[in-house]
Amino acid sequence: MSKRQLKFGAIIHGIGGSMSTWRHPEVQADASVSFDFYKRQAQKAEEGKFDLVFIADGLFINEKSLPHFLNRFEPVTILSALAGVTSRIGLVGTISTSYSEPFTVSRQLASLDHISGGRAGWNVVTSPLEGSALNYSRDEHPSHPERYRIAAEYLDVAKGLWDSWEEDAFLRDKESGVFFDPDKLHTLHHKGDYFSVQGPLNIGRTPQGQPVIFQAGSSEDGKNLAARSADAIFTGQETLEDAQTFYQDVKKRVVAYGRSEDEVKILPGISPIIGATAEEAERKYEQIASLVTIDKALQYLGRFFDHHDFSQYELDEPFPELQDIGSNSFRSGTDKIKRDAKERGLTLRQVALQAATPRSNFIGTAEQVADRIQQWFEQHGADGFIIHSELPSGLHDFVEQVVPILQARGIYREDYEYDTLRENLGVPIPQNRYTATPVNQ
Amino acid sequence: MSKRQLKFGAIIHGIGGSMSTWRHPEVQADASVSFDFYKRQAQKAEEGKFDLVFIADGLFINEKSLPHFLNRFEPVTILSALAGVTSRIGLVGTISTSYSEPFTVSRQLASLDHISGGRAGWNVVTSPLEGSALNYSRDEHPSHPERYRIAAEYLDVAKGLWDSWEEDAFLRDKESGVFFDPDKLHTLHHKGDYFSVQGPLNIGRTPQGQPVIFQAGSSEDGKNLAARSADAIFTGQETLEDAQTFYQDVKKRVVAYGRSEDEVKILPGISPIIGATAEEAERKYEQIASLVTIDKALQYLGRFFDHHDFSQYELDEPFPELQDIGSNSFRSGTDKIKRDAKERGLTLRQVALQAATPRSNFIGTAEQVADRIQQWFEQHGADGFIIHSELPSGLHDFVEQVVPILQARGIYREDYEYDTLRENLGVPIPQNRYTATPVNQ
Repeated sequence: MSKRQLKFGAIIHGIGGSMSTWRHPEVQADASVSFDFYKRQAQKAEEGKFDLVFIADGLFINEKSLPHFLNRFEPVTILSALAGVTSRIGLVGTISTSYSEPFTVSRQLASLDHISGGRAGWNVVTSPLEGSALNYSRDEHPSHPERYRIAAEYLDVAKGLWDSWEEDAFLRDKESGVFFDPDKLHTLHHKGDYFSVQGPLNIGRTPQGQPVIFQAGSSEDGKNLAARSADAIFTGQETLEDAQTFYQDVKKRVVAYGRSEDEVKILPGISPIIGATAEEAERKYEQIASLVTIDKALQYLGRFFDHHDFSQYELDEPFPELQDIGSNSFRSGTDKIKRDAKERGLTLRQVALQAATPRSNFIGTAEQVADRIQQWFEQHGADGFIIHSELPSGLHDFVEQVVPILQARGIYREDYEYDTLRENLGVPIPQNRYTATPVNQ
Repeated sequence: MSKRQLKFGAIIHGIGGSMSTWRHPEVQADASVSFDFYKRQAQKAEEGKFDLVFIADGLFINEKSLPHFLNRFEPVTILSALAGVTSRIGLVGTISTSYSEPFTVSRQLASLDHISGGRAGWNVVTSPLEGSALNYSRDEHPSHPERYRIAAEYLDVAKGLWDSWEEDAFLRDKESGVFFDPDKLHTLHHKGDYFSVQGPLNIGRTPQGQPVIFQAGSSEDGKNLAARSADAIFTGQETLEDAQTFYQDVKKRVVAYGRSEDEVKILPGISPIIGATAEEAERKYEQIASLVTIDKALQYLGRFFDHHDFSQYELDEPFPELQDIGSNSFRSGTDKIKRDAKERGLTLRQVALQAATPRSNFIGTAEQVADRIQQWFEQHGADGFIIHSELPSGLHDFVEQVVPILQARGIYREDYEYDTLRENLGVPIPQNRYTATPVNQ
């Protein structure tokens, strides 16, 4: 068996995941709607032999939202556009199961998989923001557990639709005039609690059989959905110890669902900052952090708690008691913030600034960052990482400086091994449920 | 004022709009899911300075559907992918207002408009096929008039969302830290009969302000929707006389809605077949028609009538009485078939074969086809045409042989005049409803 290899993804997020990164001198302030910018970043990640690029999403904004969220590309469109200008890298995007139709989303993902030659991936989310309901003619945002029940059924429908056509269903025999084999066309006839979808899907089996399924929630519901149905988890532990705990927890659940633990890759998001020296890297971090004012930091923090107004509290008093605020949106995130604040006795100011510009554990020279990555990987805190670089140059530095070190250490590919994202990522191509298993398998 | 100019679009439809074109020796039988094929066709149309490519769509198939419909790209994804590999041509696709969410569709179209630098277009359809409801968890397919009421409200919502941000809303002032001007952000708060959408849209005003709106139905409801809200109509008259009648009818309705008649372009779909001689063109047509068996032709005809089984009737008897069958799906199409059959005393066999391989009025030498186009254009049967070539070579022949003749005659552009589809097509860029009109306008 070949040696276990690191996997990498790159989030492309225009002007950064923080409130104020757009103010940095290096940042192109309209990058969130610049196709040229997305293309350059995707091509850079492909140069670094990354498994995938990742496009995050949300369905509700107001005047308090992060700058990047106010004006950005929609995932299906930008990923499809990137399919035309890349050739090997996977294309993964967030689509909500709470505010979309499985027939449409299954089709769009299948279509992207055909267009890209087997590089599509779907980050299944249930939409944390309560306000999403207001944009989708709904009376209310479903509760957290209900959203996960909807998601589970939605995924069943999607997987059913992707099996509508067996791999060799289309005969296309010009002589006889037989276009397809009707025995290899399957109509789903799904009727469940939330969806009723007849099928078949109007697009054939794709190069990957199914797009790669990502899951990004870390709540109990999220971990179970991932263990049952996902191929990869985009997670966010900040210390090796937390990452190891999460890793073991999820892999155990995967096995409990009757799957092999290798079938689900665990990919924490990290924000590396690389300098020629450790001090230079530190200065780069300080420069980014200094762009955030305390007002903006409070606003950013409020976003996780249903746009709660934190300016009503004393900045240097202990973090306020919030009871249930935010528990129906970013549950795992808000629980963690509350727990940390309590355990470490943090003030509101400290919590807000840390939330707005989290200090990554991956700041240093290329060698130091490579060491840390290797440590997390070899000590089973991660199967790979989603590089979530606050500045665009961070991705460039990573590809040019860290990647060659990991390649030299033999824990990262020199070139793509396969054509499809599934194969590169090392997750199986699912067999069509209707296709008889060959005897030799 | 500059001389009125022809406009052209090209439908790209993989293996053709007929039952059996895929059997033609020239056809790549998997073209409907070949990105390479779509890319080559779009680039060829762009070489011919076409205004746009057009991607049709449908939301329900069964084993009787056209081969091309069984396995084809979804419009949003393929248009976005084509955005990455073209630079000037418009990208127009069909999206249903009966089975989608205005927030998502408005976003995807706005995103495509940003990605493509102002080349997005939307063919607004209400979904003719009853079966669509079965794929979208609905108890029933809305009636024809209700579908059009939904579409009208949907378009109002979409246009409202596209005005969420004024053109200069994003200040992006790094020095002061002001990212946007809150006075230029507008929240829609739409509450109507079918939709309740708060907004704002999470993407800024696009290069075209709004994507170009196409409408393709020819029913009364369709014509009124077009006259009220569309920029262009993709229609299907077969004779110059019919085309002129339709043209005058629609332009009158446009004016009745308080718009200038130039604001809506009328573009009949035509299927030109070009030969070195008229006889060669005729032979090309005969070869395509000969691929269709009478069984397939009956099946094709049935599709317009809710998959009605026409094999139960005598082939050489007069076309059967059908009462209301099909009236809730392709209303204008089925009315026309019934009327024609009655007026011309056609048999079922004649109706079926003609429906399966309509004999285009644009078959002949390049010169003859150019003459016919010029006649329809100058005699106000059309503002331009959607080229709906059954064989892929038809588009190539048109671009290489007919386009230069029309250019030499001064009625078609030598090169793109503008960057956006709206400007090339000659339809106005709508002003944001919240932006004060400058004094000089």
